[in-house]
Amino acid sequence: MSKLRFTISMSLDGFVAGPDQSLDNPLGIGGEQLHEWALPLAAWRAPHGLEGGEVNESSKVVEASLTNVGATIMGRNMFGGGPGPWDERKPWNGWWRDNPPFHHPVFVLTHHAREPLELEGGTTFTFVTDGIEAALAQARRAADGKDVALSGGARAAQQYLAAGLLDEMQLSVVPVLLGSGTRLLENVGADLHGLEPVHTVGTPKVTHLKFERR
Amino acid sequence: MSKLRFTISMSLDGFVAGPDQSLDNPLGIGGEQLHEWALPLAAWRAPHGLEGGEVNESSKVVEASLTNVGATIMGRNMFGGGPGPWDERKPWNGWWRDNPPFHHPVFVLTHHAREPLELEGGTTFTFVTDGIEAALAQARRAADGKDVALSGGARAAQQYLAAGLLDEMQLSVVPVLLGSGTRLLENVGADLHGLEPVHTVGTPKVTHLKFERR
Repeated sequence: MSKLRFTISMSLDGFVAGPDQSLDNPLGIGGEQLHEWALPLAAWRAPHGLEGGEVNESSKVVEASLTNVGATIMGRNMFGGGPGPWDERKPWNGWWRDNPPFHHPVFVLTHHAREPLELEGGTTFTFVTDGIEAALAQARRAADGKDVALSGGARAAQQYLAAGLLDEMQLSVVPVLLGSGTRLLENVGADLHGLEPVHTVGTPKVTHLKFERR
Repeated sequence: MSKLRFTISMSLDGFVAGPDQSLDNPLGIGGEQLHEWALPLAAWRAPHGLEGGEVNESSKVVEASLTNVGATIMGRNMFGGGPGPWDERKPWNGWWRDNPPFHHPVFVLTHHAREPLELEGGTTFTFVTDGIEAALAQARRAADGKDVALSGGARAAQQYLAAGLLDEMQLSVVPVLLGSGTRLLENVGADLHGLEPVHTVGTPKVTHLKFERR
């Protein structure tokens, strides 16, 4: 069966976004530091339509995260547009512009029904209102044998982790402190719900910890 | 000048002790998981008077943490005995028994004055009531050219980190969740106060992140 895989960057003090997230500052104050290790990589630039870039120990981690993914799940907060019902007159497109980098079906967890959104390049956003298991089942069907990527944010990840539904977690720990913001590893209890560490790649800029289901 | 060095094990969710620390359970519920990587090592066993043990990638980390240390600083909670004035009739000895593993002067941060305590094997506990900088100055004098080890706990470490007084931090991140307990990296703001990552050792059981003052 296709795996549910989760890849995320986290600060040393446990935050996956800084404080005061906003439309202008979607990663929160200081949150951009979490992704600085990835941005120069050719493996990150290529799928965003950019040429060139570095190849280093982190390249394989990024490449692996983008390989064999047939569908993506994300939470409403990560899709963007703030909480509450959708504004039908001016529907929020996410931060994703016309041609998002997914190029496959994306399922957005939300409490508020909305018609699917089809954008350029093969990305469709489908809004799922009946919970994480329903979203996973839909995503698995859409992935058609490939894996499903859980894209975040923190609350969506916490729900899938605590429910024991994650098959793989790739945690990239960045040696910075954000001080406050959105914590990843809370509300999930005192165990890894069947995940175990299988591989670590340590570099000065980031440490990649890979977990897989036993 | 002698360096102030801090070595600690932390869970993936940021805790350096589990919940409900007590005399019977000084590391809190689940806290013993933070040290399982170290206990089998010959490098840990030898200074505790035990023969044999493993040698692996973590050995050098433990050896380095024990080398060239001339004095130790710890917080009152780590010394033990609970908060408040010392009981003069039944003075708490710490968890340290008659022959603690330090074998050099130890300075305990406390709000409550107490006569020094001299134990076997060269360990003396001196109780410092005039703050972290005074304790560091005393420890540096006592270390006589060697380094000073900051032993913990979390609140003492937070104070030295936030004051920019740490010269070296060795953080061993253990891939377990404790869910709650004592967090290391809080109350220290949104930067590393002059420390920067210099070296990472990744193993499946633990990832050692070393930071040094720029």
